[in-house]
Amino acid sequence: MVNIGLLGLGTVGTGIVEIINNRKDQLKNIVGKDINVKKILVRNLNKERGLDLEEGILTTDFNEILRDKEISIIVEVTGDLECSYEYITEALKAGKNVVTANKAVVSKYFEELSSLASEKNLAFLYEGSVGGGIPVIKALKEQLSLNEILEVQGILNGTCNYILTRMIDEGKSYDEVLKIAQELGYAEADPTADVEGHDTLRKLRILATLSLQGKITEEDIILNGISSIKSFDINNIKSMDSTIKLIGEAKVCEDGFTAVVQPVIVKNSNYFANVNMAFNSVAFKGDNIGELKFYGAGAGKLATANAVLSDVLDIILDSYRKGNPLGENNLKNNNDKLKGNYYLRISTPNKDIISVLRDISNKILSEESNIAIITEEVEIAKINNLISSLGIDKKDYFLARILL
Amino acid sequence: MVNIGLLGLGTVGTGIVEIINNRKDQLKNIVGKDINVKKILVRNLNKERGLDLEEGILTTDFNEILRDKEISIIVEVTGDLECSYEYITEALKAGKNVVTANKAVVSKYFEELSSLASEKNLAFLYEGSVGGGIPVIKALKEQLSLNEILEVQGILNGTCNYILTRMIDEGKSYDEVLKIAQELGYAEADPTADVEGHDTLRKLRILATLSLQGKITEEDIILNGISSIKSFDINNIKSMDSTIKLIGEAKVCEDGFTAVVQPVIVKNSNYFANVNMAFNSVAFKGDNIGELKFYGAGAGKLATANAVLSDVLDIILDSYRKGNPLGENNLKNNNDKLKGNYYLRISTPNKDIISVLRDISNKILSEESNIAIITEEVEIAKINNLISSLGIDKKDYFLARILL
Repeated sequence: MVNIGLLGLGTVGTGIVEIINNRKDQLKNIVGKDINVKKILVRNLNKERGLDLEEGILTTDFNEILRDKEISIIVEVTGDLECSYEYITEALKAGKNVVTANKAVVSKYFEELSSLASEKNLAFLYEGSVGGGIPVIKALKEQLSLNEILEVQGILNGTCNYILTRMIDEGKSYDEVLKIAQELGYAEADPTADVEGHDTLRKLRILATLSLQGKITEEDIILNGISSIKSFDINNIKSMDSTIKLIGEAKVCEDGFTAVVQPVIVKNSNYFANVNMAFNSVAFKGDNIGELKFYGAGAGKLATANAVLSDVLDIILDSYRKGNPLGENNLKNNNDKLKGNYYLRISTPNKDIISVLRDISNKILSEESNIAIITEEVEIAKINNLISSLGIDKKDYFLARILL
Repeated sequence: MVNIGLLGLGTVGTGIVEIINNRKDQLKNIVGKDINVKKILVRNLNKERGLDLEEGILTTDFNEILRDKEISIIVEVTGDLECSYEYITEALKAGKNVVTANKAVVSKYFEELSSLASEKNLAFLYEGSVGGGIPVIKALKEQLSLNEILEVQGILNGTCNYILTRMIDEGKSYDEVLKIAQELGYAEADPTADVEGHDTLRKLRILATLSLQGKITEEDIILNGISSIKSFDINNIKSMDSTIKLIGEAKVCEDGFTAVVQPVIVKNSNYFANVNMAFNSVAFKGDNIGELKFYGAGAGKLATANAVLSDVLDIILDSYRKGNPLGENNLKNNNDKLKGNYYLRISTPNKDIISVLRDISNKILSEESNIAIITEEVEIAKINNLISSLGIDKKDYFLARILL
């Protein structure tokens, strides 16, 4: 029997218990023994879970799980940052393999946790942390054996993609769609982490550090979210035979890298244009394999649980790649070299702003209270400096790269 | 040192030698020992290869490789059907692990070779046989542990997709584009296996048998190719805000399955619409993971070599799933239940044909010598029977499913 200690019994945790229960026989066939969730760490022992759980399986004491010598795998799906860091470190130090779906903890402590696991010859796996159910982390690690990865990019946040898709398809306003998304459970009550791009940024930090085999931290990444987008922007984008996606992207650039999370206007014929609603997609490019793209559910109980359990199976079957997957490339942040054509809309502009904008504009689109420009090729740093020098409030402009 | 016996030194074989040479140090770091191509089976010892090969490495005698006790992995990339079957069987019987990129041999002898490898506790891997460089076979096998796979579909042939993309984008005729594709090496001198759909059919046979965990043979699959498509059809398709793809698709249907390779008219907003030129895409749906889609190079020297070498690494690192991956579901062929809306164009129709067509038409499009109909929902068997009862020659009609 393989015993698992499960930390957290929220959406993903519940999905994990359900799949293990529903596929008991198939799993036993594959791994040759029973997979047993022996202990589950929860905050509240008395909450109704809607699950058929064994007496005494729930605990509020992490140490009870840590000290249990029969538990060889810890599955961390608490969603909490600082506690989960402590749990994962303690578990690895105690000789237990760890699987997590927590992108915040992987992003913040990636190097430290990867080294610790590698020193202890233990697994530290996190398929569920990026792209929900998409099996991309394992694929990326494997392709790294045979390829130099030159770039990685993706639609990594289902909430943003859901909002942008419905705004484009239905002409609804940002606020209307956000409200619907919240009602349907696609967005949280406080949507900041999603719509401001922090969630995408964390996932890009993980993908970029793996892909480019050098440390690329959260602070290394330029960040622009989607919360200030207006129907005026949507109409402009549609008139360009295009759509808009929040994309995280990291690339090899000269002696270093560029890394940015930003809304990108893509032609309707672009691959990413047909990645809609709450779906995610991750793409990377290797020197031998060429372009690879992966598409799937960006979140959701069973899809994320499935990703977590694929890591668990790899540990039980000993079929994961050993050693520290992170590289030691010393990469320079070349984000100051990042340039492109941009779409910039400013609301309630004054004459001074307009005259400054004319300098970098190829095309000007405007209506009463909004002015939008399409720039010539220009450094993003220049645009961001311009915006701060003009003192424009975050909610009063929207910036997107245009992929030609 | 790990010694490989390579069978075939064509495009893919050359790519394999190149990648192993170029990544010698990285590969040694990963597997902890040198990977060495010890012997290569070729037809002609004196052909100029453009490779820096060791003296005596080439041989025309398969038995020299088979008897070499130092060779533990046979990589079969001859492209030949009957010889490769013999080589693979002999290799497995002699206790050697086998990797192949040959879809014809996998498709024809899938059950037999899978059983033989499993009995001998050896690897029989074939990532390069479907979808070129796309790492989909391994992903599919792994998802089968956690999911019932309900359907699998894909754009599986780069030649057809290249021809259809250029016809749609540039308005060129089938013959013009085929000629360009042949000149550029995207199509062979005899393009039959590609354009008539046989290559797609073999790949679907492999994907379907794995996905649905029951034997689905080449003969089980309904087949319609693309060779009779005309510019008249392309114009009709474009006017439907759609494009056209050759798609192989197998689905669970009641107590059995349906399996078909056919041109499919998809809306421009469909995911597959933006899989263009020589790229491939494979999609499958599991009950937990939901939809997963994979996109990448459908062929090519380095991409296919990369797929083959990922299997080789899995053998060396012992990180592939053991046991026979094929299932024993006894599935009924329910292709007679397969129905949909179809586009049917007939050239030089007579009055009798037109009156029969009216029976199943929702819409009729026509010009001088062509009549095209869009059917109501109808069994494909009914349409195929109709076509044969009317005695229409293969080159004089074009049939495609319309995905609404």
